[in-house]
Amino acid sequence: MVKHIMKGFEPLISYDEMINVFKSINFKKPGIESVTILSSISRISSETVLADNNIPLHDRSAMDGYALKSINTQGASVNNPLKLRIAGVQLPSDSVTKKAEIGECIEVYTGSKIPDGCDSVVKVEDTEREGNYVYIYVPCSLYENISRSGEDISKGSKIILKNQKITAAHISAMAALGINNINVYNKIRICIINTGEELLNKTINNSTGALLSAFYNNEYIKTDIAATCGDNIDSIRTSVKNIIKLYDIIIITGGSSLGRHDLTTEALESISELKFSGVAIRPGRTMALFLYSGKPVISVSGLPVAALLSSMILVNEYIKKLFNLEIYKKDYAILERNIHNKPGFSTFQIALTEARKDGLHAIPMNTRVSGNISSIIEGNSIIFINENLEGLEEGKLITVYLIGDVRWD
Amino acid sequence: MVKHIMKGFEPLISYDEMINVFKSINFKKPGIESVTILSSISRISSETVLADNNIPLHDRSAMDGYALKSINTQGASVNNPLKLRIAGVQLPSDSVTKKAEIGECIEVYTGSKIPDGCDSVVKVEDTEREGNYVYIYVPCSLYENISRSGEDISKGSKIILKNQKITAAHISAMAALGINNINVYNKIRICIINTGEELLNKTINNSTGALLSAFYNNEYIKTDIAATCGDNIDSIRTSVKNIIKLYDIIIITGGSSLGRHDLTTEALESISELKFSGVAIRPGRTMALFLYSGKPVISVSGLPVAALLSSMILVNEYIKKLFNLEIYKKDYAILERNIHNKPGFSTFQIALTEARKDGLHAIPMNTRVSGNISSIIEGNSIIFINENLEGLEEGKLITVYLIGDVRWD
Repeated sequence: MVKHIMKGFEPLISYDEMINVFKSINFKKPGIESVTILSSISRISSETVLADNNIPLHDRSAMDGYALKSINTQGASVNNPLKLRIAGVQLPSDSVTKKAEIGECIEVYTGSKIPDGCDSVVKVEDTEREGNYVYIYVPCSLYENISRSGEDISKGSKIILKNQKITAAHISAMAALGINNINVYNKIRICIINTGEELLNKTINNSTGALLSAFYNNEYIKTDIAATCGDNIDSIRTSVKNIIKLYDIIIITGGSSLGRHDLTTEALESISELKFSGVAIRPGRTMALFLYSGKPVISVSGLPVAALLSSMILVNEYIKKLFNLEIYKKDYAILERNIHNKPGFSTFQIALTEARKDGLHAIPMNTRVSGNISSIIEGNSIIFINENLEGLEEGKLITVYLIGDVRWD
Repeated sequence: MVKHIMKGFEPLISYDEMINVFKSINFKKPGIESVTILSSISRISSETVLADNNIPLHDRSAMDGYALKSINTQGASVNNPLKLRIAGVQLPSDSVTKKAEIGECIEVYTGSKIPDGCDSVVKVEDTEREGNYVYIYVPCSLYENISRSGEDISKGSKIILKNQKITAAHISAMAALGINNINVYNKIRICIINTGEELLNKTINNSTGALLSAFYNNEYIKTDIAATCGDNIDSIRTSVKNIIKLYDIIIITGGSSLGRHDLTTEALESISELKFSGVAIRPGRTMALFLYSGKPVISVSGLPVAALLSSMILVNEYIKKLFNLEIYKKDYAILERNIHNKPGFSTFQIALTEARKDGLHAIPMNTRVSGNISSIIEGNSIIFINENLEGLEEGKLITVYLIGDVRWD
């Protein structure tokens, strides 16, 4: 009587196959813009910045005290102090270098250039001043309390590499070198197109668009939510066509449930190349990828968590491919209970990662609610189980992908 | 001959005393503003948001298929299918609820309201359609493939608590509930005043201001760098007086080296209350805290890393006190080598935390360069050793305070 029991069934590709297909696509790197170093935090550098000078530029005092010739301080002690004439003051702001002759020292402050004739600084605490003279109570070694020129950063060394995420430390180093601007990649622009009459007529509120937009929006990714499309091929196709030039990635939600699959496919097949449709992942198996104008158009479930987890795989691969970065932070945690995997599927399991005295622990959330928004309000991390694994064992050290902050008490 | 060998020496308070002094000060919470949920990511909520409805609002289908009465499907199989008349379609966008009579089912899609007379959904893959009839090949249990009303979020439950940092999941839940705006605390405003003639006349570039500004600036803190002050009491005092109303925290750099200590103190003592000056921490022992108009004015070293580490203690305590949050993420790591502590001091040691197969490992950076910018370009974390410890032992599981991303290969 029946040939195809599984109406709506299509062969699913594996997670690994999906990744391989995605990796084989060449995406254009985003353009470049110059920004001030202070506004460059967490942007991706598009240039390798080399130090064009030593930092410190000159040998400088690391203390307040007296610059002197170290060899003359040998044997100095409280009972047998060395008495030196203070020949002047070298302030940190002085660009002209003073000079100490034999029997002399120069008063210096943290940051002062080391005067000529000096190779060491004695801390003010180890001295006592008497008018224009100072008693030195300790022996000083060569370059003691001196920040040597280039000790921090030497001329020609790498401050930041191309494709690195810019940190406050990079910015500080650039500031030290007098660099005011840096070239960074334009932000990756992601547009989310939500589809569904139920969103258009507000029978259901659009929690999926809000989740994706808020999650992906960061210092180097800018997200927008396009006008919602009804269950209508023309409106989906027109929306994608209209915005493709403005974005690097388009995520279409709701077009991938089996009943609506044809809508998105029909909307896109004439204008784009279908790379795959149906992936053996849970949740999110109805996801599909189209390539349009060389850009990924990702079709995912309309359910918020499924849409997030499945789109995240490809957005992450995209960032990895372009910049060797990942959009979530990883960590290690001890798995708190066995997780069984559904044969033939790769699984994304929401978990709560929390710190205990012996390290981080990952507590898988109740499977029943793992597709719910509440699971990612409570949970802060994702555990990935590849389809070639039957599951993960309690007590094992596993990798968790953090989508929120680890809980500390 | 000598009474006070240690010129410039002042009694230092301990780290713990400093924290206690700081904790005892009452700071005013920042004001409140209403923002759209999409722009609220990582802001601090100033309200507890309760769900004013169930999510899902109604029992909804979690699959594409047919809604039916589960009891009638008992014993259904491929060889003995249940045949039902398809009485209609309930679309996810339909607000009116259809009804199935005995012997009938209703075609549904993911998100569709469950029609009256139905208590279960059979997946389309487990059926076959023939005109207006469908063969059901599997038995269905009660509420199978149904998202129950309130299953995700139940009416009255807490979406986000006052003082919590808002995540994408919170935003998604608020969107699901039709909430458009949320009250958040104004951003904490930090102003950095750098002092020193050497910065004014550009003998040295201002790497410290850049570091602090870039480091503290985040989704809930806004930083500014004020005009640099020379080594001049009036200009420091005037600067603080002029900006105190606009900021929650002021950090003055360079005014705390022993030689300049008096400048900042003199500038501030007549207009503010000195809470402490000189702390037994390394680096940063010259730091001081003033309370002016009920706001913390933190005086720190002009050296970038010392300025960052010492100011960070108090900025972190401030955030902790107001919101029970910390400005860095913590993690656990295995210490890679012994760290010895200087007696009488609490030490902040820069370390590189990296992931290996057996977990995270913290490699303390060369002490010689721990005050350098390069140490925080290379290092990504801080190890804290309280003065009551002689040191930390290699192999121990320690807490690291992350100021950058953990290195993964």
